[in-house]
Amino acid sequence: MSSRETQRLILDSALRLFNQHGSPNVSTNRIAEDCGISKGNLNYHFRTKQEIVLTLFWQMSQETLAESALEDGTAEERTAALFARQLGNAWRYRFFVREAAALLREQSILRRRFADLRRRNAGEWRRALGDLAAAGRMRPLPPEPEFELLLGAVFVHCDHWLHFVETQDEEIDETAFAHGYETLLLLLGSYLTEVGRAAMHRPAAVDAAAGQFLAYITPPPAQGRHRAMAESQTLTV
Amino acid sequence: MSSRETQRLILDSALRLFNQHGSPNVSTNRIAEDCGISKGNLNYHFRTKQEIVLTLFWQMSQETLAESALEDGTAEERTAALFARQLGNAWRYRFFVREAAALLREQSILRRRFADLRRRNAGEWRRALGDLAAAGRMRPLPPEPEFELLLGAVFVHCDHWLHFVETQDEEIDETAFAHGYETLLLLLGSYLTEVGRAAMHRPAAVDAAAGQFLAYITPPPAQGRHRAMAESQTLTV
Repeated sequence: MSSRETQRLILDSALRLFNQHGSPNVSTNRIAEDCGISKGNLNYHFRTKQEIVLTLFWQMSQETLAESALEDGTAEERTAALFARQLGNAWRYRFFVREAAALLREQSILRRRFADLRRRNAGEWRRALGDLAAAGRMRPLPPEPEFELLLGAVFVHCDHWLHFVETQDEEIDETAFAHGYETLLLLLGSYLTEVGRAAMHRPAAVDAAAGQFLAYITPPPAQGRHRAMAESQTLTV
Repeated sequence: MSSRETQRLILDSALRLFNQHGSPNVSTNRIAEDCGISKGNLNYHFRTKQEIVLTLFWQMSQETLAESALEDGTAEERTAALFARQLGNAWRYRFFVREAAALLREQSILRRRFADLRRRNAGEWRRALGDLAAAGRMRPLPPEPEFELLLGAVFVHCDHWLHFVETQDEEIDETAFAHGYETLLLLLGSYLTEVGRAAMHRPAAVDAAAGQFLAYITPPPAQGRHRAMAESQTLTV
């Protein structure tokens, strides 16, 4: 197994275990055991659990900011795709979303990177909502203090909707996504025009976004997802 | 120290440590140490950490459902008070909100009690929004599937708003509360009437609710809060 493959194995295992048990409950020993490698081998790649968390955060940032999926289609399709990606990442890295306050308190480097990611992410939503307004789907965007609150509401919803669904004892599937999307529209409700409301509720658009969401949260079969991403990037270059 | 006082001490200490470090990071040994009592003494009162979590959940339910504060005033004042209480409890018991999915998975008895609490809580919001509609503050409430989503959005917002504020590196204070309240109104935006919007934005009402919120999250000085609650109940009977 190459060094790169070992790192991939460790990160995939850590992510799965952190999501399932919470990162404080998972030791590096347990990750090594889960990977079927020695503790020494794991230590060679990651000296501490903090390093694993930091690398997973970096990986999440890369996936969060992979913009290719958001370039095509109408303004409402791009917004739905953005929502699918954000909900998908919040679920794939749910240990991070839930433990964020504690993790950020522990590592100042994570705090800076997190602030940076959120800023870029806010930029994407700003653009998506701006495009909706330009296409007549939304009324002109509200001025700054109100717009910040709207963005905050969108972030809270994206980060925590599926946690809410999980504590309701319901499945994380297309239906959970569709309900989350309907709730997003409800949140944007007083800004949507009639035309916008109709366009954003189109079943085909919701189904397409639900499909993207499922692709995000389905675990990759032995690095298949990463390879597929690399290939598609090669193709589009 | 009476048996009751020791229990109170253990619960207050556990809540503080769970909130600060996450419950998986806190052992019963550490709680005993923090209380300055022996491990045997702690075990006499609570056999396991699960029992402490369960008791804290019961305590949260009692505080969540203490209805007295919500009986007085106009429909919008009662709604603001409900929001203050819910945001206050989500912060006081933030370890529970953040770890809910994992904790509910571990203890089936907690799962049942949590579902019950959420049902009663939903009933309170249903009543508050119904009262706003009856008072002409809101348009007639939407029919069932849409109303469920609206309730879901309100719950997600109440539970996670302050976590969002914390990860923004901002203080948990009146301003954080006021922004959370403005965002709630934004969420209800497309249902509010013009009269309702003006009534709910009244600075005096927001200030009063912010004061209630601060009272919820300020740690009680040596059981003072509980004693005060007991006394006020005696006075109003």
